[in-house]
Amino acid sequence: MAYRVLVWGLGAMGSGIARNIHSKLELKLVGGVEKKPEAVGKDIGEFLGIGNIGAKIYDDPEKAILETRPDLVVIATNSFVREVMEKIELAAINHVDVLTIAEEMAYPFYSHPEESTIIDNIARRYSISILGTGINPGFVLDLLIIAMTGACLNVERIEAKRINDLSPFGKTVMETQGVGTTPEEFEEGLKNGTIVGHIGFQQSIAMIADALGWELTKIEEIREPIISKTERKTAVAHVKPGMVAGCKHIGRGYINDKVVIELIHPQQILPQLEGVETGDYIDIYGDPEIHLSIKPEIPGGKGTIAVATNMIPYVIEAEPGFLTMADLPVPRTLLKDLGR
Amino acid sequence: MAYRVLVWGLGAMGSGIARNIHSKLELKLVGGVEKKPEAVGKDIGEFLGIGNIGAKIYDDPEKAILETRPDLVVIATNSFVREVMEKIELAAINHVDVLTIAEEMAYPFYSHPEESTIIDNIARRYSISILGTGINPGFVLDLLIIAMTGACLNVERIEAKRINDLSPFGKTVMETQGVGTTPEEFEEGLKNGTIVGHIGFQQSIAMIADALGWELTKIEEIREPIISKTERKTAVAHVKPGMVAGCKHIGRGYINDKVVIELIHPQQILPQLEGVETGDYIDIYGDPEIHLSIKPEIPGGKGTIAVATNMIPYVIEAEPGFLTMADLPVPRTLLKDLGR
Repeated sequence: MAYRVLVWGLGAMGSGIARNIHSKLELKLVGGVEKKPEAVGKDIGEFLGIGNIGAKIYDDPEKAILETRPDLVVIATNSFVREVMEKIELAAINHVDVLTIAEEMAYPFYSHPEESTIIDNIARRYSISILGTGINPGFVLDLLIIAMTGACLNVERIEAKRINDLSPFGKTVMETQGVGTTPEEFEEGLKNGTIVGHIGFQQSIAMIADALGWELTKIEEIREPIISKTERKTAVAHVKPGMVAGCKHIGRGYINDKVVIELIHPQQILPQLEGVETGDYIDIYGDPEIHLSIKPEIPGGKGTIAVATNMIPYVIEAEPGFLTMADLPVPRTLLKDLGR
Repeated sequence: MAYRVLVWGLGAMGSGIARNIHSKLELKLVGGVEKKPEAVGKDIGEFLGIGNIGAKIYDDPEKAILETRPDLVVIATNSFVREVMEKIELAAINHVDVLTIAEEMAYPFYSHPEESTIIDNIARRYSISILGTGINPGFVLDLLIIAMTGACLNVERIEAKRINDLSPFGKTVMETQGVGTTPEEFEEGLKNGTIVGHIGFQQSIAMIADALGWELTKIEEIREPIISKTERKTAVAHVKPGMVAGCKHIGRGYINDKVVIELIHPQQILPQLEGVETGDYIDIYGDPEIHLSIKPEIPGGKGTIAVATNMIPYVIEAEPGFLTMADLPVPRTLLKDLGR
């Protein structure tokens, strides 16, 4: 008996998750929800390029839930708590568990306390489980850090970096990271909110601090342009020397005037042109010190698709509530269905 | 309200765990069990060198449990399932949860299926939780590997290495690893069971395989002498060129004739004298590939003390049963009690 899963939102991430769900023995892809006219009414397998699988794409999410009767719905439509709350409520009143890759949902208890209380109440009232996850927030710069502190007698301070290459991504990502802008345009973009950097530092920092029982007095975020010294080109971006190759985003958690958690995430195209090696790096300063690196970094797209898919059984099997990655067992790759 | 913890076995690990428990806000060290005459009847704080804490060391474990009324007992007396079973039962009939660092208890379902069933039955009958853990098995070469596969769409094969330096350890460890023997004595020691290498590969490999749903057809273990090219000396060991500096222990999990899990753990004194860098290394071959390293390795003693202590609240809060690290949330450093 495989768990029945509906995927709401069939963009790059939602489509990847749907495809991955379909490949897994423990899971059954029972349908999709998507508004794009070219998707509505189609078989979801055909839309995903894996052949007809006898499951439909709906434009009406309620109809999708009622007809496909899923155990869980994956919501892969937005990054923000306020934009997924109504969707979560729709799943809840139909008693369907929820997993979402909306970054803010990984740990909104600090950034969105009121909404978090409402979501937790919804989970308990309708006896469903809700989890926000992904590769980051959700895994590299929070869960993995927490796990490393578990091997320490004491921890004084945490530093971690995720250095990646944005080259594979499309125009939207280039715009939100300011790739190809001039330094002046970058500053302007930060001000008017078109350049956002990474979404998730407020969440990751609060998740780590709460896990360790650290009462932070401040979380700050800094976004700096990565000014290129070289010419960098991808299919959708062109950066000349002196222009912006990406956004160096820093998040810091303070206790009084001491930085106890520092997360650094410079996102740019082709960092190797300036000798920068991509990777995930975690340094725990405590007793003992732990210095972990993953080279190259766990890729963001595949990592998010994998973590989201692999957590589905744990969410379905969990007690009701608004859960976090720090509350559940670690994900493990689900077994392939060799017949698919 | 701190959780009340009794520590059974006050050797190097048990004493370290007891000291660490005492330093933590969420935990209260309520006593110890130890047969050494110089310990019995003493205040455990005085025995540990941290001053009188008003908690006693008993030689009778049942009396200790009845008088100290712990929520959980840490069993740090042995490495083997058969040697801790009776102790677990004594805790169980008194409705006390158990955490043990006996290596085989980290995952004995494959190596000791009958005993595992009995232990699980005991846990359920008396409504207690039981966990076997430590740095390895329990964390580096199993839980951390499982977590890394969680960021993969698929995994084909796993290789991992834990390269450490035995120099800080005492005579017993040198003997069980064959440090300072001749190659002939090493072979003889393997045959008569005085040289054992690492305890835990059967457990770690089975834990990984079960988490991934892999049905292994064979687990094999190989122990090879590490023949020294250089002279190596510690306080308790002296290795001349041509003699044995330690034991290279390899564990392999097969599906038919394919090695799908390979764990390598060369344990020796002063590996740096021959240019060997200590560290924990995990390579996941799948989609994506993940290459993780921790340099230097997480130290075995402190790591075991930390992981064991930090898992205590999760064991107490868990549903009854014989649990594994793959069933529970990741450990995180517990907060220091600043008053202690």
